[in-house]
Amino acid sequence: MKSYTEYLYFETKKPKDFINITHRVEEALQKSGVQEGLCLVNAMHITSSVYINDAESGLLHDFDKWLEKLAPHEPIENYRHNLTGEDNADAHLKRTIMGREVVVAITQGKLDFGPWEQIYYAEFDGQRRKRVLVKIIGE
Amino acid sequence: MKSYTEYLYFETKKPKDFINITHRVEEALQKSGVQEGLCLVNAMHITSSVYINDAESGLLHDFDKWLEKLAPHEPIENYRHNLTGEDNADAHLKRTIMGREVVVAITQGKLDFGPWEQIYYAEFDGQRRKRVLVKIIGE
Amino acid sequence: MKSYTEYLYFETKKPKDFINITHRVEEALQKSGVQEGLCLVNAMHITSSVYINDAESGLLHDFDKWLEKLAPHEPIENYRHNLTGEDNADAHLKRTIMGREVVVAITQGKLDFGPWEQIYYAEFDGQRRKRVLVKIIGE
Repeated sequence: MKSYTEYLYFETKKPKDFINITHRVEEALQKSGVQEGLCLVNAMHITSSVYINDAESGLLHDFDKWLEKLAPHEPIENYRHNLTGEDNADAHLKRTIMGREVVVAITQGKLDFGPWEQIYYAEFDGQRRKRVLVKIIGE
Repeated sequence: MKSYTEYLYFETKKPKDFINITHRVEEALQKSGVQEGLCLVNAMHITSSVYINDAESGLLHDFDKWLEKLAPHEPIENYRHNLTGEDNADAHLKRTIMGREVVVAITQGKLDFGPWEQIYYAEFDGQRRKRVLVKIIGE
Repeated sequence: MKSYTEYLYFETKKPKDFINITHRVEEALQKSGVQEGLCLVNAMHITSSVYINDAESGLLHDFDKWLEKLAPHEPIENYRHNLTGEDNADAHLKRTIMGREVVVAITQGKLDFGPWEQIYYAEFDGQRRKRVLVKIIGE
């Protein structure tokens, strides 16, 4: 069994952002040399997500608006977590909706994807340095 | 390490549907010959889900109603994604709530499930041909 | 390839509860002897979750309040599932938001975690005996 580990670093200029990381995961896969296996991609921070969906700017706008409705940033004092001095309780909830991780099949040396699947990093409490883990196991 | 890949095809008659696919995943597992490992099952399309929950018709009704409340189909023009000519923005959101994938442990040649766990394919933009991937690795 | 399987048992005193199980997963990992691989941790029951987020009591309170808003327990008769004699339809929905499982990378014999990642068991229909599965594969 082979295994391969890579960390991707992000520091978004905006508090919230969506970044297509498919190509970076494909690069990691090539470096791994794995032909058949599984690829885990996860946020290593608890106010950001890794998820799979469409690379379409309108949809990214819809996600952002929808998440703000389901887990509004304000009023900040509505969240007990924010009594710690943080103002990012909503970011923990938004990340919960979008998910921490994806597991992708590797078949014949490639991410085994449907036609529109793209891997995104979603930031909900940005402007600070954060990491994503890519872990590949297989043969 | 063994690996096994199988694609399941679906074309639902209704726009939205819930299909119990546990038996089909069990058949794939038998073909794989894997005794100890992991089984990934994921939607390969971004408007459908694979999830694990109860095979109870009342609950399927509740899921449908609840998802329609959290991510309503209409008004269609409320979603910027629908400006592309699609009317399925809500399906992308519903699939996000229900999830893209499940990872199931394989123990002694069987899906290592609790008493009520069943694997479902959830369609939110059907009436077209779609795929689910079953990827099994282990020994 | 090595594999290791362990079942964790829970019987919460309260109907809803959040339990930090990171240490128990770390113990399972040590027993497994795996240095590089993947660790699946999943609820084996369909009204509870395993998720990764912050070990901060204010946030746990916020999760509980937020889930009650997104999927209220009452009125019980609003859910068709509850016609079966159960009153836990909301617990199935809450578990869907929080997720069934996490997959964690194992690197150099440890859970490869960011600074705040902690594994939680979330119970939404407690006061009965339930199980969580820890499945580790790797080398």
